Amino acid sequence: MAVPLAPWKQLLLNSLESNGSLKHSTYFQLATIGLNGRPSNRTVVFRSCKVEEIKRFPFGEICWYFTDSWEQYRISGSIDVIDGSSRDQMKLLQREKAWFASSPRSRQQYLGPIPGLPCILEEPNQELSLDPSAGPVVAFCLLIVDPDQVDYLNLKSNERLAFTIKNNDDGGKCWDSKKINP
Amino acid sequence: MAVPLAPWKQLLLNSLESNGSLKHSTYFQLATIGLNGRPSNRTVVFRSCKVEEIKRFPFGEICWYFTDSWEQYRISGSIDVIDGSSRDQMKLLQREKAWFASSPRSRQQYLGPIPGLPCILEEPNQELSLDPSAGPVVAFCLLIVDPDQVDYLNLKSNERLAFTIKNNDDGGKCWDSKKINP
Repeated sequence: MAVPLAPWKQLLLNSLESNGSLKHSTYFQLATIGLNGRPSNRTVVFRSCKVEEIKRFPFGEICWYFTDSWEQYRISGSIDVIDGSSRDQMKLLQREKAWFASSPRSRQQYLGPIPGLPCILEEPNQELSLDPSAGPVVAFCLLIVDPDQVDYLNLKSNERLAFTIKNNDDGGKCWDSKKINP
Repeated sequence: MAVPLAPWKQLLLNSLESNGSLKHSTYFQLATIGLNGRPSNRTVVFRSCKVEEIKRFPFGEICWYFTDSWEQYRISGSIDVIDGSSRDQMKLLQREKAWFASSPRSRQQYLGPIPGLPCILEEPNQELSLDPSAGPVVAFCLLIVDPDQVDYLNLKSNERLAFTIKNNDDGGKCWDSKKINP
């Protein structure tokens, strides 16, 4: 399943570098299909109730716009939700690694009340203590997007590229790219 | 169908004002459902091939994130596509108004080749001339989102509000708001 060369990844790394001074460059929008069948869209920071949606319909499209370089990436693919119940040891390790890679402040977010339910307490929650060496809590899921299509648009040069994954004759996969009208 | 008081609109106007110095504050992401049934997501600048998708499934969710004030709006509702073939005179007037309100540079975009098709010309197109007093071209559509649900999240104060449209006993509509867990 390993796809050696993803030509759009280099573009994305360049965009991240050229927009590196902007903290918000690491935020993007993830669209999925809601339980009501309608589109659902959110900025990916902290968490939001997306896991149920993805489990039902495991596809999404990331829209990542870079405000300094005027570049947009639309990354479309299947989404894998990895929670503590996974039987795949590799996936569990990836989840643990992601947990320890996140800041104590963002880990803290997973101890709060269930997102989207009505607030019951008038006062903000007391800070719940979290042992920095403790592994991922139950609410923590790792989402892995496996892209099969990427649409790159550069609004400065007015160029647009369509990247699509193709099956090789040898059973492997490779990325095909095509210049398309902006 | 007029909804007099939309409490989230005042929040949005405040966000626009407090992020007014950032040009990109006027960009947002619109998610729809693609012709392949998968989520489709794009930054709304210029145009992209969204009209076909919306005609088939006329619902969308806007995700609008303000990078200076750390506020996110998720605006969900039905979408009306107004092109030149509409028989509603009011809608045609709205479309014309939107056309003249856009800059000559963005009007120019609607004269280019069909977005998403392979580039045929090696050289960029010659600038097609456009009479500034000429009305909307065929490719120009006006999209109107009629929101029925708005999710507001403030990441500085860690507060979240859910706004939902409700039917009144007198046949009118009003907005209900509820504080929910972030």
